[in-house]
Amino acid sequence: MTDAQTRLIAEAQRTLGPKSVLTDPADIAPWATDWRGRVHGSTPAILAPASAEEVAAIVRLAAEHRVPLVPQGGNTGMSAGATPPADGSALLLSLRRMNRIRSVSADDRLAVAEAGVILATLHDAAHAAGMRFPLTLGARGSCTIGGLTSTNAGGTQVLKFGTMRSLVAGVEAVLPDGSIHNGLSGLKKDNRGYSIDQLLIGAEGTLGVLTAVALRLVPAVAARAVAWAGVDDPASALELLRYLETRTAGIEGFELVPDDSLKLVLKHIPNTRPPLAGEHRWHVLMEATTTEAGVDVGAELEQLLSGALEQGIIADAVLASNEAQAEAFWKIRDSISEAERTEGQTLAHDISVAVAKMPRFIVEASEQVERAFPGVVASGFGHLGDGNIHFHVRAGSHAAPDWYEAEGAEITRFVDDLVTAAGGSISAEHGIGQLKRAEFARLADPARVHAIRAIKQALDPLGIMNPGKLIP
Amino acid sequence: MTDAQTRLIAEAQRTLGPKSVLTDPADIAPWATDWRGRVHGSTPAILAPASAEEVAAIVRLAAEHRVPLVPQGGNTGMSAGATPPADGSALLLSLRRMNRIRSVSADDRLAVAEAGVILATLHDAAHAAGMRFPLTLGARGSCTIGGLTSTNAGGTQVLKFGTMRSLVAGVEAVLPDGSIHNGLSGLKKDNRGYSIDQLLIGAEGTLGVLTAVALRLVPAVAARAVAWAGVDDPASALELLRYLETRTAGIEGFELVPDDSLKLVLKHIPNTRPPLAGEHRWHVLMEATTTEAGVDVGAELEQLLSGALEQGIIADAVLASNEAQAEAFWKIRDSISEAERTEGQTLAHDISVAVAKMPRFIVEASEQVERAFPGVVASGFGHLGDGNIHFHVRAGSHAAPDWYEAEGAEITRFVDDLVTAAGGSISAEHGIGQLKRAEFARLADPARVHAIRAIKQALDPLGIMNPGKLIP
Repeated sequence: MTDAQTRLIAEAQRTLGPKSVLTDPADIAPWATDWRGRVHGSTPAILAPASAEEVAAIVRLAAEHRVPLVPQGGNTGMSAGATPPADGSALLLSLRRMNRIRSVSADDRLAVAEAGVILATLHDAAHAAGMRFPLTLGARGSCTIGGLTSTNAGGTQVLKFGTMRSLVAGVEAVLPDGSIHNGLSGLKKDNRGYSIDQLLIGAEGTLGVLTAVALRLVPAVAARAVAWAGVDDPASALELLRYLETRTAGIEGFELVPDDSLKLVLKHIPNTRPPLAGEHRWHVLMEATTTEAGVDVGAELEQLLSGALEQGIIADAVLASNEAQAEAFWKIRDSISEAERTEGQTLAHDISVAVAKMPRFIVEASEQVERAFPGVVASGFGHLGDGNIHFHVRAGSHAAPDWYEAEGAEITRFVDDLVTAAGGSISAEHGIGQLKRAEFARLADPARVHAIRAIKQALDPLGIMNPGKLIP
Repeated sequence: MTDAQTRLIAEAQRTLGPKSVLTDPADIAPWATDWRGRVHGSTPAILAPASAEEVAAIVRLAAEHRVPLVPQGGNTGMSAGATPPADGSALLLSLRRMNRIRSVSADDRLAVAEAGVILATLHDAAHAAGMRFPLTLGARGSCTIGGLTSTNAGGTQVLKFGTMRSLVAGVEAVLPDGSIHNGLSGLKKDNRGYSIDQLLIGAEGTLGVLTAVALRLVPAVAARAVAWAGVDDPASALELLRYLETRTAGIEGFELVPDDSLKLVLKHIPNTRPPLAGEHRWHVLMEATTTEAGVDVGAELEQLLSGALEQGIIADAVLASNEAQAEAFWKIRDSISEAERTEGQTLAHDISVAVAKMPRFIVEASEQVERAFPGVVASGFGHLGDGNIHFHVRAGSHAAPDWYEAEGAEITRFVDDLVTAAGGSISAEHGIGQLKRAEFARLADPARVHAIRAIKQALDPLGIMNPGKLIP
């Protein structure tokens, strides 16, 4: 521990109270490693302020002592953006004690949640007010509003409601100089200069610490229908989406599943069974919702799928006959990553290309990877309607203890080159964090790199906010 | 003209061709004054590049010669943000020749329009593709996509579709160092560092020159219904909006009109007549739409208004019985500013407060202004559902040649103080430009001022992008 860190920790103990400063290695350990257990950081202390003012006090102390801070919410990130550097130079700033929902207004369709509020808690609070916060994802039981906003998270309902950026009405944040930016006014129209709120969304804590977020709510769901379809290829899946979208505004989930992924789930995940009797090379899980009581959204979806079947867009389809079956369909989708991990080592790539280009990209990129690295298995699954799939490469016959680090890095560069050549993004919904920083620096447009570095330098000249993350 | 300007103009003539550089004062005059004729600028030349590459070449020349540029589209701004400084130190950079719609895709629900495309032209192109670009406003026949994006414009359909920020999928821009930022990929999910696109939206040309914009399209309207209601006060108007919003998703226009404004329109604008037979202190113009053929949106709105009448929320209402009557209702709303100008001098304030606070704000602020400046007439009209009204103060018995500049400035500070105390914004949808810069500097939060200045200095260290605008 450096002298500066010792002084900062002592002053933090006076400012926050001794219980809000954790220095016992056993208390720190679970938060110093990313949740996938891949990146191991180190820090002498976790500071846990309980208000924006306390966060501001800590940031001012950090600036004074030149000790960097790593903001952290639920530690569920996919790119190690909330994991401290391994050299122990930074302190963890945990937002988990800032877990109050300050307001929920059905009239204004707004909720204000502090950074440490867990997503599922917000879902419940919106529901209790007769409303809904639509963004959701697998980690909903532990991820926090601050982290979701800082990474501009996506999830399975982006098709209809957009990413966090579309759902954030404003943020409260402590800037690197210790001032508090208040963007929680809830104003629908406000053009007073550059949008500091928009700059902080997706900045992964490198320009300040989010302390609270104003979130847009939408009307509660009255009913949902979930269906599973078998299709010949990703192009047919996209054709199905277009067919549905031009006939109903109700589709809010549309997930592509290759048969390879389905087979792995059936093999490794207990209590799963194939939704359709026949064999299909590709599958689609879709969900339609309505906010109007009395609308039979299931009958509507079934009729549309009959039409798609008649037109030869899909080969077969089945509507979940009840909520339990609907959950069973979603469980297949949500278990793909787990099933892959059970099967063996898997390289994950969270990528996007333009929606129209995605069907061809999935097929061609898989072929190219399998040709370049014979023996591996490549496939893409996920949010086809957003142009965002999780392009995973399994070790297959290459399985070896160091496969992930050795050939894995080479495969990732290969995939990232394909994505870049297709005009896509190597970071669709998971952020840059630590894990994608080198690839971002290698592939980013120089104009973007220059602008990002200039903004970082302008707002955080001391470099105290989340060092080693995002900046190419 | 300075030597540097002379050299830049000569080089621009070589780069763009002589016809794309206007130096005749008669050609320049219409573009050197803002459209309301209030702010008179001066410039030795208008440069009119035809491509992003030509814009980049001009920006590099401007940087080399340290000659600032003022980007300009349709010159319809309300805050003189596209008017050059009066000292002739800057050149106008007209984007009007960049008027190509590069693509319209109904499948992707995206259009890519160059900065100089006129809004009405985009409306037509979207319509021809069976789609719709929903943002619209009075200047639609002359305002441009670049200007609308640079000012994060609003308009009358924000209630349902948001401001330009919600409708922009990405931008192409020339940054102050002459590099071209390409954000036109159309990716729905892209988290590669800070959003340069979001930073440029609403930056009023102070961080770069927009050259093209990717815009979200929505399904075309199948039918619309327009109605007029009489209410007792703004609180009843908001109650009506809440009543409608919980029963239909179709409301996309909801405009508040005080009886004073209606009377002025009937007095000064030919061929206008009152929609309702009786007298009402306040009025609401509303529009509902549907994208589904066969849905009788008129019958639905009429039934909802009957319910609101029964519950005593409104005093009377009438549905436009045909398209001509619908247009006549909208003409009243769109003619308020013109009628006020005919009546005499009018101070306009484009302000917002939280929606729930707006009814009380309108009433109380009007009373306070009329009490502090006895003889003037204050009233608010416009986008109640967005918490954004145009708070206008007429000279009334104070009419004098210098009223606008003399007492007007004092009244504006008085209004801006009320707005700030209510947690609102002194710039809702018109931007800061030149006209609101002093008030912005006086009232803005220091954290915001510091961040804006730091970002400007970081990205435009030479100060060549739209000097004298926005920065507090």
